[in-house]
Amino acid sequence: MSAAFTPAPMITLLTDFGYQDSYAGILRGIIFQINPTATIIDLTHGIAPHDCHAAMFQLRQATPYFNPQTIHLAVVDPGVGSSRRGLAIQTSQGVLVGPDNGIFTGVLHQAQVSQAVELTNPDYWLPLEISTTFHGRDIFAPVAAHLSLGVALGSFGNPIDPAALIRLPGLEPEQTSVGWRGIVQGIDHFGNVISTLPKTLCQGGTWMVQYQALTLPLMQIYSEVSPDQPIALIGSHGWLEIAINQGSAAQIYGTRLGDTIYLYPA
Amino acid sequence: MSAAFTPAPMITLLTDFGYQDSYAGILRGIIFQINPTATIIDLTHGIAPHDCHAAMFQLRQATPYFNPQTIHLAVVDPGVGSSRRGLAIQTSQGVLVGPDNGIFTGVLHQAQVSQAVELTNPDYWLPLEISTTFHGRDIFAPVAAHLSLGVALGSFGNPIDPAALIRLPGLEPEQTSVGWRGIVQGIDHFGNVISTLPKTLCQGGTWMVQYQALTLPLMQIYSEVSPDQPIALIGSHGWLEIAINQGSAAQIYGTRLGDTIYLYPA
Amino acid sequence: MSAAFTPAPMITLLTDFGYQDSYAGILRGIIFQINPTATIIDLTHGIAPHDCHAAMFQLRQATPYFNPQTIHLAVVDPGVGSSRRGLAIQTSQGVLVGPDNGIFTGVLHQAQVSQAVELTNPDYWLPLEISTTFHGRDIFAPVAAHLSLGVALGSFGNPIDPAALIRLPGLEPEQTSVGWRGIVQGIDHFGNVISTLPKTLCQGGTWMVQYQALTLPLMQIYSEVSPDQPIALIGSHGWLEIAINQGSAAQIYGTRLGDTIYLYPA
Repeated sequence: MSAAFTPAPMITLLTDFGYQDSYAGILRGIIFQINPTATIIDLTHGIAPHDCHAAMFQLRQATPYFNPQTIHLAVVDPGVGSSRRGLAIQTSQGVLVGPDNGIFTGVLHQAQVSQAVELTNPDYWLPLEISTTFHGRDIFAPVAAHLSLGVALGSFGNPIDPAALIRLPGLEPEQTSVGWRGIVQGIDHFGNVISTLPKTLCQGGTWMVQYQALTLPLMQIYSEVSPDQPIALIGSHGWLEIAINQGSAAQIYGTRLGDTIYLYPA
Repeated sequence: MSAAFTPAPMITLLTDFGYQDSYAGILRGIIFQINPTATIIDLTHGIAPHDCHAAMFQLRQATPYFNPQTIHLAVVDPGVGSSRRGLAIQTSQGVLVGPDNGIFTGVLHQAQVSQAVELTNPDYWLPLEISTTFHGRDIFAPVAAHLSLGVALGSFGNPIDPAALIRLPGLEPEQTSVGWRGIVQGIDHFGNVISTLPKTLCQGGTWMVQYQALTLPLMQIYSEVSPDQPIALIGSHGWLEIAINQGSAAQIYGTRLGDTIYLYPA
Repeated sequence: MSAAFTPAPMITLLTDFGYQDSYAGILRGIIFQINPTATIIDLTHGIAPHDCHAAMFQLRQATPYFNPQTIHLAVVDPGVGSSRRGLAIQTSQGVLVGPDNGIFTGVLHQAQVSQAVELTNPDYWLPLEISTTFHGRDIFAPVAAHLSLGVALGSFGNPIDPAALIRLPGLEPEQTSVGWRGIVQGIDHFGNVISTLPKTLCQGGTWMVQYQALTLPLMQIYSEVSPDQPIALIGSHGWLEIAINQGSAAQIYGTRLGDTIYLYPA
């Protein structure tokens, strides 16, 4: 960026709360009561209920574009109230706050981790009875707000080994005898099917992509094919993607997260 | 909260405008032209069109988590242009601004009301021709913005008796010969079915819940039952709730607002 | 407005990114890294994918309600990566930033244009490899952010003739032998069908409206007809609109953008 860097107490929100309830607004109310000058940014509240894989992908896609001092609060929490841990993790792409269920796998895969704590110190939680069903409100939002005020990470609980954090499997492409095998890590609103295969794998030369019954040459822009035709290209996020020009590939191909995609030289 | 309380000109928005139009953005444009330093927070714009009951529930669920100086602008307004009154109401959970059609019933039920006015003073409305179909834009948003600048409530119109405000019925649980009868006051994005029965009714001892053909013991956390199994518990909002662990109770049971739910000692 | 006018670096966002991805949040991350004090307002991210006509309507409906120094960033961009131009346009209703594909037609129709440039200067783009699929992130958001810092419009690229900007057809009502013919330019979340016929055409006297098999007198407020009955009236935006009181006209009549609507004296 050409402008001077100005740190700011910025907090992003990523949840599966949807847009019909006031749950996301409640997180903001709590954060503003603790830090009235926080800047709060919605990444999305449209993660499908309890979909930790989608949360993982949407978060890893966003963190590189934020100030590294940003606090990323992520609440997709099917195990709330059980023994799953609450986390705050300092990384080179911001501080992550949320449940220990794999939603941070993608950021942990692409960033450097310097410190992780389990949220065990109730001094920074909501000073009411803690519910068993909404730790986003009662624990994670207040912790994020106090972090934005400058409270040190170590104050929030016991240090834990970053190697012990729960991680979702499959993010690392596997080498095959003829090329690479990846999986679908994300599906976006346009129906684009986004793989785990990074552009660094297919620099130079000509590459082919295989997904279900499709075999496609790797191309560069959607409009290289006619409307409604499939195309394989490197998406804006830097991963190989299957798309339909002005259509939805995920819908046409019935894509599911975890589907296999192959990449090999032509 | 552990941090110092800092009043701020904060305005929340709750509407049935949805997310495909620029209507909610227009409210912000108007507020910022009157008070460029306002902090504006979306509670939700996803209330079903004209659903005053859902608006009532989402608003009452949120107000306790905001600074009591917050201005809550709520626009679900099927009677716009008719003789229904516009309101500004000072309560212990913030100032409420919107139409007199019952959407404030829940907050009025749980907060103390100190003053109410009918919005009759056009000095604080949009200085254009007032439309007959969008008082959110032409009257309520400008009034909320002027409130956030410190204009006294009494300036906006004639005082009215809080007892005369329109209220939706059924929020008060009824005692039966064996326990309590409540109704469904809300359904959230996860399909959780939220009753009017507060946790204060079922402290101590063992309680049973009856809803449709279900009879369930009152439990504590979603994960006490297997995925896809029903559970009755006290939700994060403090009311008895019927849920399906990692599923949608409202969908399975075809829940409608106003359905009856019973609570009784085991 | 009765309050003093205070210019502020305000940026609105209108996209077809939807609400399930973090794309809109990424735009904010980029803008805040360049201008941490920007105020960012969502008009909507709910434009149907690639629907330039809907984007055009939602944007023209909103700009009159914003400070004329506002920067309106609009990204509905089916031709991204092709030869379509990127634009920044100074108008009397704010600065418009986005692709040259017709989405600005409505604002250009109702505002005065003073200057237009093609975005050719990469000094103000994201200093990474520019993707071929997400100019919203790589070009338009950084340009909007630099505009909000006060960079002069001429710095962003070569001047172009405003008359050469791509415009969608049909916004101008046509006079017929008995009255006026317009088209449906917008459909809102409530299912209201919004025409291109402005209220200035039907001042005074009694007017009739014809749409599909409907012939309706022009009325004034939704509640002039019973629930579920159709009505023709001037909507809050100032255009003739067909609505169903507390229902969805677009759904009942299978409305499509571009449908014909007639207006004539009774």
